Amino acid sequence: MTDLDERDAAVGTPAPEAVSAVIARLSKEFGDRLSTGRAIREQHANTVTWLPNEAPDAVVFVESAEEVQAVVRACAAHGVPVIAFGTGSSLEGQINAPRGGISIDLSRMNRVLAVHAEDLDVVVEPGVTRKQLNEHVRDLGLFFPIDPGADASLGGMASTRASGTNAVRYGTMKDNVIALTAVLANGEIITTARRAKKSSAGYDLTRLFVGAEGTLGIITSLTLRLSGLPEAISGGVCPFPTIRAACDAVIMTIQSGLPVARIELLDEVQVKACNAYSKLDLPEQPMLFLEFHGTQAGVAEQAERFAEIADEFGGGPFTWTARPEERSKLWQARHDAYWACLPMKPGAKALATDVCVPLSRLADCVDETKRDIEEMGMVAPIVGHVGDGNFHTVTLVHMDDPQDVAKAKIFIERMVHRSLAMGGTATGEHGVGQGKKKYLEAEHGRETLDAMRAIKAALDPQNIMNPGKILP
Amino acid sequence: MTDLDERDAAVGTPAPEAVSAVIARLSKEFGDRLSTGRAIREQHANTVTWLPNEAPDAVVFVESAEEVQAVVRACAAHGVPVIAFGTGSSLEGQINAPRGGISIDLSRMNRVLAVHAEDLDVVVEPGVTRKQLNEHVRDLGLFFPIDPGADASLGGMASTRASGTNAVRYGTMKDNVIALTAVLANGEIITTARRAKKSSAGYDLTRLFVGAEGTLGIITSLTLRLSGLPEAISGGVCPFPTIRAACDAVIMTIQSGLPVARIELLDEVQVKACNAYSKLDLPEQPMLFLEFHGTQAGVAEQAERFAEIADEFGGGPFTWTARPEERSKLWQARHDAYWACLPMKPGAKALATDVCVPLSRLADCVDETKRDIEEMGMVAPIVGHVGDGNFHTVTLVHMDDPQDVAKAKIFIERMVHRSLAMGGTATGEHGVGQGKKKYLEAEHGRETLDAMRAIKAALDPQNIMNPGKILP
Repeated sequence: MTDLDERDAAVGTPAPEAVSAVIARLSKEFGDRLSTGRAIREQHANTVTWLPNEAPDAVVFVESAEEVQAVVRACAAHGVPVIAFGTGSSLEGQINAPRGGISIDLSRMNRVLAVHAEDLDVVVEPGVTRKQLNEHVRDLGLFFPIDPGADASLGGMASTRASGTNAVRYGTMKDNVIALTAVLANGEIITTARRAKKSSAGYDLTRLFVGAEGTLGIITSLTLRLSGLPEAISGGVCPFPTIRAACDAVIMTIQSGLPVARIELLDEVQVKACNAYSKLDLPEQPMLFLEFHGTQAGVAEQAERFAEIADEFGGGPFTWTARPEERSKLWQARHDAYWACLPMKPGAKALATDVCVPLSRLADCVDETKRDIEEMGMVAPIVGHVGDGNFHTVTLVHMDDPQDVAKAKIFIERMVHRSLAMGGTATGEHGVGQGKKKYLEAEHGRETLDAMRAIKAALDPQNIMNPGKILP
Repeated sequence: MTDLDERDAAVGTPAPEAVSAVIARLSKEFGDRLSTGRAIREQHANTVTWLPNEAPDAVVFVESAEEVQAVVRACAAHGVPVIAFGTGSSLEGQINAPRGGISIDLSRMNRVLAVHAEDLDVVVEPGVTRKQLNEHVRDLGLFFPIDPGADASLGGMASTRASGTNAVRYGTMKDNVIALTAVLANGEIITTARRAKKSSAGYDLTRLFVGAEGTLGIITSLTLRLSGLPEAISGGVCPFPTIRAACDAVIMTIQSGLPVARIELLDEVQVKACNAYSKLDLPEQPMLFLEFHGTQAGVAEQAERFAEIADEFGGGPFTWTARPEERSKLWQARHDAYWACLPMKPGAKALATDVCVPLSRLADCVDETKRDIEEMGMVAPIVGHVGDGNFHTVTLVHMDDPQDVAKAKIFIERMVHRSLAMGGTATGEHGVGQGKKKYLEAEHGRETLDAMRAIKAALDPQNIMNPGKILP
């Protein structure tokens, strides 16, 4: 396994003259909103994995769908790649430019275009971030539930099919994008669906673009589903003697139809890190963090039922609270889990990776992964959106130690194959990018990848839309 | 507007020798499981709309994915169309064979292949019907919530992106198909996803095939999400002074996050028909039928809250019951709405059509549609899955009276354009088939249809998979 596994060979890299021609054309149109400065270009390529930074040839800061269209048309005319950029928080090299090309920075397309409170939907430009959207709609008693941790752009979240802690109750981006507009490789703008809550009118292009990581087109607006802010929220933590006991409690919780809004697992290593970082004094055991949304009576009932379930599997005590400040402190600790890990191996970089398995295999998968961590002598706390069977390892790696890097790569590779062997997927929510391309055939089979390739070729025959991503 | 609007010209009809060659080849393989008898062929073409019955050249009763593959390969070799058939309950001509070809009857592929109770999923062959599935999993305390009324096959329900009364709470087929296998036009079998609850690993082919009406491939198995049978169910009916008042109550109910399992509107015409047919004595006013799922305390709380909302909009009294037999009687009446209509215009055929608009426009759309019905002197009761903004008219038509037929066509056309003008869709759940092809460009625009055509051509370059459907 070499770095080349994750990167693309230079096949398809456009000729320097083609790139120059595009940059000259766009410079005229965009003036100082086009940048070829090295710092800006590198900032627009991926930096949060071990994948090397592969900078685009230029970055254009667009302000409208028509401008996106202009960039795509210029690039299409010369066969130059186009890479969409939101906030740069993707984790698998989605924004790298292995063949160069133009990075389209969408962060200035950050207007909320329409709020339809009666319909519980909102129309936004792709550069709007989830926190910005939530501030915008809070006074209407509404919120956008998808929370991947980072304050990512909604266009980026759609493109990677993001989810996070609330997905067990509210679904993923797949379930919360009603429609979108996108600029295709041929420069045309399409709208995938109407604002109606459901439709049977033709192919589901919405879902095709959600998770396509910019390889089929550039999203220029999104119609998103909002939810009503719950009347009451309660949350709490519950320790368990073992990972398996915690997972069994999760299965029972989901199976009994308890509508948990969040149910997160932290292994004892992560709990210890959170205690130190967030100044908590949680027992250093496998721990579930929970949150319930509903009416006052409803959340109390849910908490009681969960406590009974936890008890049945030897867990507890389940301590919960409806007080916002206490709840926030707990969830802040959960959200800071990534940062909390860093001091555990000073000087190391934290590489987050995720897999997702059927719930019935979750305990097996986490247990085997923990055994691997121990046997390989690694530091890699585990956190998981366990209601969905999804978990992360945060692998701490000294990036300047080739042996440490090699070990981490082997560990992640084993984790992915373990997930696949259990009927799971190579990634529950981070996406494929460059980092997980090599697992796609093992996951889907050659015939399915060929179908994906046929669709890609049909919509982007020149392969200019974020080339070198998803498809191996 | 002529019938040709809905039908395809014979362009693409294979040569008789090609059809004969395929039938000869398949006869050898399938023996008496291949039929060319007229009655069987006509029974496998559409009969529940005004679309003319366009029979296939032969019907093959398959029993495995490999047999589907064999039929598709034979047809592909000779450029002969392949049409998937489940139970024949589709409403827009989805199973017609305008260019002849081979109808693949999947009803014998009716095995439940695996039940994973801990994961709340099940793997079925496409010919399993929803009632059969529900009988299979009931003892495990589980159910499959999608209920389009007819006891349709699950393959057909996936292919038309079916939904129905429970969709407001449990989603549509789009939300409840986890993965599927399908035979493509090239004869290869693909599996679209793993059994994990979520994934970001590549293009969402699952959602691309859900709603594709067999035009991209033939579904040979489905992994479906199950739900836990609710601990308690309560249901009831609530009259309103006007359609608008009922719709306003629906908006408030949805907006306040009340997790209604069903919320159905019947207009006063439909209530009258149901009273007569099902021997009820409901007040003949616009009426909401509701159902709540949850704990004992939860359903009582939901019912109380709904009663308050109804009261706020001048509705009520809301009479509800948790007694199964009373609830069943009400819902049976709702499910019999179609049959209840028939005596209102003796000798007429009932043509069900559906549109779906943003919730905020529902009252406008229903009101204007009712005005149209009145002004045109038609009999067309209205029922709706109003929590989703989706409603149906059941237009009663004397099929042997060309004027009556012409009038109904104009009425439906106006209803579709009304929905589109309000941000709605031409069909919320019945699909496009042949009947609604002509509206697809008005709904999506030329550029979007071109993208759909490109995908279709990429996966089915000979256009043999259910040709003449969806794409105009």
